[in-house]
Amino acid sequence: MPATNPHIDTTGTETAGMTTLEIVGGRVLRPDMTVERADVLADQETGEILAVGDIPAGDESLDATDGLVIPGLVNAHTHVAMALLRGYADDKPLGDWLREDIWPVEGVLEPEDVRAGAELGVVEMIRSGTTGFCDMYFDVGEIVAAVDRAGLRARVGHGTVTVGKDEAAARKDLEEGLRVAQEYDGAADGRISTAFMPHSLTTVDGEELDEFVPRAREVGVPIHVHANETKEEVEPIVDEHDERPLEYATEHGLLEDRDFIAHGTHCDESEIALLAERGAGVVHCPASNMKLASGIAPVQTMLDAGVAVGIGTDGAASNNDLSMFDELRDAAMVGKLAAGDASAVDAPTAFGMATVGSAAVAGFDSGRIAEGMNADLAVVDLDRAHLTPHHDLVSHLVYAANAADVRHTVCDGEVLMRDREVLTLDADTVRETAEQRARAAVERAES
Amino acid sequence: MPATNPHIDTTGTETAGMTTLEIVGGRVLRPDMTVERADVLADQETGEILAVGDIPAGDESLDATDGLVIPGLVNAHTHVAMALLRGYADDKPLGDWLREDIWPVEGVLEPEDVRAGAELGVVEMIRSGTTGFCDMYFDVGEIVAAVDRAGLRARVGHGTVTVGKDEAAARKDLEEGLRVAQEYDGAADGRISTAFMPHSLTTVDGEELDEFVPRAREVGVPIHVHANETKEEVEPIVDEHDERPLEYATEHGLLEDRDFIAHGTHCDESEIALLAERGAGVVHCPASNMKLASGIAPVQTMLDAGVAVGIGTDGAASNNDLSMFDELRDAAMVGKLAAGDASAVDAPTAFGMATVGSAAVAGFDSGRIAEGMNADLAVVDLDRAHLTPHHDLVSHLVYAANAADVRHTVCDGEVLMRDREVLTLDADTVRETAEQRARAAVERAES
Repeated sequence: MPATNPHIDTTGTETAGMTTLEIVGGRVLRPDMTVERADVLADQETGEILAVGDIPAGDESLDATDGLVIPGLVNAHTHVAMALLRGYADDKPLGDWLREDIWPVEGVLEPEDVRAGAELGVVEMIRSGTTGFCDMYFDVGEIVAAVDRAGLRARVGHGTVTVGKDEAAARKDLEEGLRVAQEYDGAADGRISTAFMPHSLTTVDGEELDEFVPRAREVGVPIHVHANETKEEVEPIVDEHDERPLEYATEHGLLEDRDFIAHGTHCDESEIALLAERGAGVVHCPASNMKLASGIAPVQTMLDAGVAVGIGTDGAASNNDLSMFDELRDAAMVGKLAAGDASAVDAPTAFGMATVGSAAVAGFDSGRIAEGMNADLAVVDLDRAHLTPHHDLVSHLVYAANAADVRHTVCDGEVLMRDREVLTLDADTVRETAEQRARAAVERAES
Repeated sequence: MPATNPHIDTTGTETAGMTTLEIVGGRVLRPDMTVERADVLADQETGEILAVGDIPAGDESLDATDGLVIPGLVNAHTHVAMALLRGYADDKPLGDWLREDIWPVEGVLEPEDVRAGAELGVVEMIRSGTTGFCDMYFDVGEIVAAVDRAGLRARVGHGTVTVGKDEAAARKDLEEGLRVAQEYDGAADGRISTAFMPHSLTTVDGEELDEFVPRAREVGVPIHVHANETKEEVEPIVDEHDERPLEYATEHGLLEDRDFIAHGTHCDESEIALLAERGAGVVHCPASNMKLASGIAPVQTMLDAGVAVGIGTDGAASNNDLSMFDELRDAAMVGKLAAGDASAVDAPTAFGMATVGSAAVAGFDSGRIAEGMNADLAVVDLDRAHLTPHHDLVSHLVYAANAADVRHTVCDGEVLMRDREVLTLDADTVRETAEQRARAAVERAES
């Protein structure tokens, strides 16, 4: 990438009018998972990393003393506005939880509620070192506005559900999926990209996919869909079509290169081979899969087969937070349990999934601290009891670090959080608004 | 308990010379898992809670505004000094990890190293709202000194291992187990209690148990032992003795009332019934069991059978932290996965295990915010994005809160951390000493 990128100026910061950000005094986690003493210089015009190591002075400065500069974490599957429903209903299986609790409240959400939930979620992401995410929800314009304001990077889409709707309503929802994919692609100075997002293989019909997937291809966006999350979702497709769900998906135009599925909890070997062969990605959501008792995705097997695997939190209502640090720990822990092998999903593998892997799935040029990559990064405090001693910092990031250890968060070369203060939104106001809107929405739903 | 405790003065704070601590302005999590606006008054002489609700003014004050007062978390199984080995070796199964990495370093540890590791661990516990723990290790005098200084509550013991030792060395280690149990019981103004701790059913012989368990009963302490942690630990006992390990344990005098086993990952139904019948407790260690790919303990089945179940982190080298907030989340998440039921190990159940359950197993009069209980508690900040909105605070404690959300920690009526500053130890010095001693120990082991 450096060789083809005209924005990189490795000779210094002399370009007229250019502003730069230096991150100095710390250690840097390099793409090969080694840690070295280094500074980082970012170009705030292009949003890219100019240099790593011995750098010229920058215009703006972030102190990384006693800290580790890491690539910003990428949350490759979430429903950010669901932060509004955090803790509203817990300890129930997916189907009951959706039908009895989540959908009734979502049914009364107003666009301002989606905005409030999205702002709450992006504040939490910034405070936990997440710099980019993929989001499937509705009222996507509100989510786009929150992302634009927050300064994060996101691939967004409208989650289209047609099951149970009459034809007019179904078509309207599919058209909304295409409209969102077209309208917001490239928004927020290019930090926002889109996808066409049929909700799942069981909530959108095959004929609908046959008509709308080609239209999404014309728009030029990838397709993101929930797939094989629970056994209850796999069985009806196998029963009705006598084939595995991902085979069914390919017959309806899905799983091309750049497409990505969420969960993939119950993929058999033929489906893993299919994903690898077609270049489609998977977003592993370990916490959500545990909390809803959906199962454990065969992540180590997918990785061994060459599938691109990222990590996502899913919505905060089934997690119940958006911290990718929890998800790193969960992915490594449950990966060992699934494989019956303590060496499966080791710490570098987990960290790689949440950075390089998630970025690849999302289509972001981030996930690595290297020249020419997007300057999407975080600085993690190392001078903490629970991160002492420093035998292995990658192990600490995966097994011991928490959201609160993030000191600074930077996206596209802009400082979004400095010394734990979020700069792009007023975190107190965001919290208060979310609290009020959440209470009002629940009252409406329950009345 | 209030009725029989002469220290409680519910009429006010007029007892001559008595000092009291008030925790004011917050909400309180009551034993029935409801949350109410209330203040808490503690007697610093007796270390007990005097009143909850509308209280007279105390001598010392802690501000709980925007916070939730919770019972201090009890870490019912750990090896606190192993904080020194955090991240030293990861991603390996139990046997290889112990033989190739942990035991070689433990073999060169000096008493000052154990002290440094223990101080590092207790700082981490105080900073994560843990007020009491059960510990099995060696050089126990150093651990006692660290606990005394830190102000925590602990049940400690010497982990006796005789396998592979000649008779003299084996007897010496068993005698050390008894000596520790006798010498330190009641230390630190009664905050320290002890147990006789044969390491496991496969690392101490049956004949040795037959001789030493009755002697431990004469000392009057309970017995704590690792049991059924891995299949590799269960199979040799079944093969050699043609019975399940816990049946074998009872034949050698173990599993009486007050005794407790660590892990219990692979207990069959007969063993669960045995535990319930005899009143012996289990300490569930979900993170360690996942990280070492040992399996998932059938916790919901144990609870349904009436077994007392607590939660522990195990040592930081197999976790890799001592935060009970991570463990709460892990216990709830993996409990659902094990049961294949999202309603298993719900949030109140998990929180109950880490407080009332762990306290019962450890034999502490703590785990509940109620008059007459030990004033072992923590205040959790609620004004955080990741704990918003406040639909369900117990859910937040289990699924979304982190160690860093703890504002104050109190044990035995004494403030151990105020506004995140540890008062009883110098956290910076503790970290630096641990870092130096860890590096030196690893160098000795590897040279």
